Amino acid sequence: MPLPAPAITSLQNPHVKRLVRLRSRRDRDREGVILIEGARELARAAATGLELQTLYICPALYSPEAQEVAPTLPGPRLELSREAFEKVSGRENPDGLIAVASRPERPLPDPGPDTLLLVLHSLEKPGNLGAILRTADAVGVGGVLVLGGTDLYSPGVIRASQGSVFTVPVTALPETEAQAYLAKHAFTRVACTPDAPRDYWDAPLTGRVALVLGAEHAGLPPEWRTSDLPVRIPMHGEADSLNVATAAALVLYEALRQRRSALG
Amino acid sequence: MPLPAPAITSLQNPHVKRLVRLRSRRDRDREGVILIEGARELARAAATGLELQTLYICPALYSPEAQEVAPTLPGPRLELSREAFEKVSGRENPDGLIAVASRPERPLPDPGPDTLLLVLHSLEKPGNLGAILRTADAVGVGGVLVLGGTDLYSPGVIRASQGSVFTVPVTALPETEAQAYLAKHAFTRVACTPDAPRDYWDAPLTGRVALVLGAEHAGLPPEWRTSDLPVRIPMHGEADSLNVATAAALVLYEALRQRRSALG
Repeated sequence: MPLPAPAITSLQNPHVKRLVRLRSRRDRDREGVILIEGARELARAAATGLELQTLYICPALYSPEAQEVAPTLPGPRLELSREAFEKVSGRENPDGLIAVASRPERPLPDPGPDTLLLVLHSLEKPGNLGAILRTADAVGVGGVLVLGGTDLYSPGVIRASQGSVFTVPVTALPETEAQAYLAKHAFTRVACTPDAPRDYWDAPLTGRVALVLGAEHAGLPPEWRTSDLPVRIPMHGEADSLNVATAAALVLYEALRQRRSALG
Repeated sequence: MPLPAPAITSLQNPHVKRLVRLRSRRDRDREGVILIEGARELARAAATGLELQTLYICPALYSPEAQEVAPTLPGPRLELSREAFEKVSGRENPDGLIAVASRPERPLPDPGPDTLLLVLHSLEKPGNLGAILRTADAVGVGGVLVLGGTDLYSPGVIRASQGSVFTVPVTALPETEAQAYLAKHAFTRVACTPDAPRDYWDAPLTGRVALVLGAEHAGLPPEWRTSDLPVRIPMHGEADSLNVATAAALVLYEALRQRRSALG
């Protein structure tokens, strides 16, 4: 058995400097890679067959979950000292695992007669997109289309989705491409908007349906708002609007409820 | 018209030192007060008649919303310099309004025949409790019972709820009191738990119903899990569990849907 390579300790080491650089979207885009940190997130990503270019480990920082996951992860690995790992980590309590991976290529799904899609327009907060992907995973959607330049693989989205960004079929694409795809496959576009004439539970959500949600404050632009079947989420009280992740969960689960009842 | 008092500039001023101290729960509990920061949160709190003991303002930091809200807030006010305000603020971008207020007293609601309650057991994250209160406000619940020592009026909850913690009838109380109250008024206890035999949309959620949810990881303790009507939220995919705020939104809105349908 060869001796393991010594751990990287210098904060000036090129690996350390690259990892720090890759925390900026521009640098990730330029290299065509993503950063994945955390045991759960890496386990989910690896389970989909995603190639990890390099896995950086720091056993001194391992959480119990990282201890378990680390030996199962594929690809070359390098050890960092505690200080070096803390330098490259984006977390307050790093668990000792971070990797550079190639950017997943996700083609648009080839829809079946009952494919349920979610279309997200210009979401701003990584936490919201991540929470929505977790729900989309739980519901088993056919695909998620992300419009408006959102960084699908930002560390914030990866983390908030708990890795669901790798298991859900999700694609970031230009708006015109999304519209062409939905038209070509004759999806019924169901837009959530406060001024819609009917409650979401009164709309037929079976069949080939694309649920469309917009940013929390700006909402949807007119060309999406005036969709085939606009729906609203009824609201009492003084809250201005539900959180967009809450709104997405409500319409996704209503679609699931109707599909289960239809099978019923 | 008297001249306005000069702004407090010294970081050693007793008001400044007290405000910093009140960021700890222990100190808020000892004084029986809460801290409310932000224009929207203060507007909501003031609208419920809550007494603001002292409002601290920093016009140099006003957001457009704070500019509008500040003149409408009741009670004595003191001006802080920018530096002093930034010292006492718990936010990255303070909007120039923070107040010390008395802790709201919320009696348990006197239930009607269709009162819908939400019972939250040992939620850990202020962000989740805040999001749930926003949804509870949107649904118009009759009350929210918070068990297990959660700090109902922590700055994190106030902020994440966008002030809904003041407009929703919410009470923190010991577990035994909550159980006695639910039994006395013959609430049907509907616990959300992954091993329940039926999906939440198949459970009758009209009438006097208390929806019970537990902490995201620990779930509910046995005495709550084995409730009158345990329900589960169906899940595909690899996500371990839905976020508790998402789960709460789903069961709250299903209860609302059923109540609306029952009205015809």
